[in-house]
Amino acid sequence: MRTYLDCIPCFFKQALRAGRLATDDEMKIKKLLEEVGEMLKDISIESTPPETGELIYEKVREITGNVDPYLEIKRENTRKALTLYNLLREKVEKSNDGLLTAIRIAIAGNVMDFGVNENFDIEQETDEILSKDFAICDYDKFKSYLDETDKVLYIGDNAGESVFDRILIERLNKPVTYIVREIPIINDVTYKDALQAGIDKVATIFSSGTRAPGTFLKKCSREFIEMFNSAKFIISKGQGNYEGLSNEKHRIFFLLKAKCYVIANDIGVSEGDIVLKGINV
Amino acid sequence: MRTYLDCIPCFFKQALRAGRLATDDEMKIKKLLEEVGEMLKDISIESTPPETGELIYEKVREITGNVDPYLEIKRENTRKALTLYNLLREKVEKSNDGLLTAIRIAIAGNVMDFGVNENFDIEQETDEILSKDFAICDYDKFKSYLDETDKVLYIGDNAGESVFDRILIERLNKPVTYIVREIPIINDVTYKDALQAGIDKVATIFSSGTRAPGTFLKKCSREFIEMFNSAKFIISKGQGNYEGLSNEKHRIFFLLKAKCYVIANDIGVSEGDIVLKGINV
Repeated sequence: MRTYLDCIPCFFKQALRAGRLATDDEMKIKKLLEEVGEMLKDISIESTPPETGELIYEKVREITGNVDPYLEIKRENTRKALTLYNLLREKVEKSNDGLLTAIRIAIAGNVMDFGVNENFDIEQETDEILSKDFAICDYDKFKSYLDETDKVLYIGDNAGESVFDRILIERLNKPVTYIVREIPIINDVTYKDALQAGIDKVATIFSSGTRAPGTFLKKCSREFIEMFNSAKFIISKGQGNYEGLSNEKHRIFFLLKAKCYVIANDIGVSEGDIVLKGINV
Repeated sequence: MRTYLDCIPCFFKQALRAGRLATDDEMKIKKLLEEVGEMLKDISIESTPPETGELIYEKVREITGNVDPYLEIKRENTRKALTLYNLLREKVEKSNDGLLTAIRIAIAGNVMDFGVNENFDIEQETDEILSKDFAICDYDKFKSYLDETDKVLYIGDNAGESVFDRILIERLNKPVTYIVREIPIINDVTYKDALQAGIDKVATIFSSGTRAPGTFLKKCSREFIEMFNSAKFIISKGQGNYEGLSNEKHRIFFLLKAKCYVIANDIGVSEGDIVLKGINV
């Protein structure tokens, strides 16, 4: 997805939020916003939003000296999500279509996203999404391609959310490689966060090599790009990965809640909608 | 009111909105946002938001060549408000406390503000505000100072809203000078807009000389500053005027709906609250 002009005010909102988590020094945060302002002329609207996100959070680190402002929030989100783990597994086991329920749960976990929303109630969100209609639901194709594949590439999004991903991974019944970010960026899932969520018990954890809050291939490691190109079945979670991957020519299933109207418009759904969308299927 | 860091993302939202009304040329709007970005380093957090607003809308004019992007919206808002005029007068006449009802109506008109919200339903808003509790209500002081004064300085805010102001002006029973902006800025009321609303029938219309979307004295004409300094009774409508005047040492009654959480916090109320707040009273 390209950068829409509406993304620009949002870049400043994100910088402000991260700046405030990283430091109490208002002048440093002002400086951060100024530098994001200077940066605008170098941001092409043809670039993907995560590419700009990478630059913004680099500035956050550089100006505030804080390399992981979301550390405590991520730990707390994962801890909270883990307390729901047994309950979520039970929901899957008791449902008529365990795989679809697990997909819904994985999407519900996507609400743990401080890049977009600061406040959420994860239990309420889960219940809502379990009964919500999909705006796009390529479930039949998802099942059919899943049957044919020998392994799954699962691109994670946020910490905390990865506990919900674990529920879906367990239900896929295929060897899964779970992709994390190379460094802490917003509340996105890193290797450490995935370990805390217990992903190592159900999948191989691997970094995409990206320092951006979304998977844009040109910014990923050669190893990941090779893995991506040879993958037969790819699940991409969340908005940041959609932004980075939506124009790829590869078959990808996007699982997300459209939390921002710009992304919702790009997908062709409404804000708040849940989506299981396959591209090149 | 000073500029809070939260105002910065909002400056970009406002620039984007005005830019889109002014032109269809996405590259010009991008250029506008870039120039607002460059501007940030020169914006002191000690300045008032309307001072920055002035610079932003100067850029809108300069880059798009459109000196009044909100012209049609203002005309339409005023036209729509005028269709409610008789109904609103009737509400005042039928109420137990006509002055307080007229104050509420004047606040309801304040929802016609494209600087903050794009969408509103003015009839529904009026009904809600007629029955809403004030978060701050210095009505007794308002009445008592009004009784003592021989004339009223009434600082208008938005076009369309001025029809609602007219209802209150008629109820004040004092000679009123109605203050408008010097040039078109957002949807703020100018001389022409006030004429369309029929303000000339109930008050003397006078420009503050400001080119900003709010009354900040240092940016006003000498004539207006003299008028302001000698005024015994001042009504200031809306957020922009509050932002510019809230630190003055003069007695002022602010009538507004707190449509933005930053201003609400500054006043000490919640977003959405309605306020009749006197300072230096």
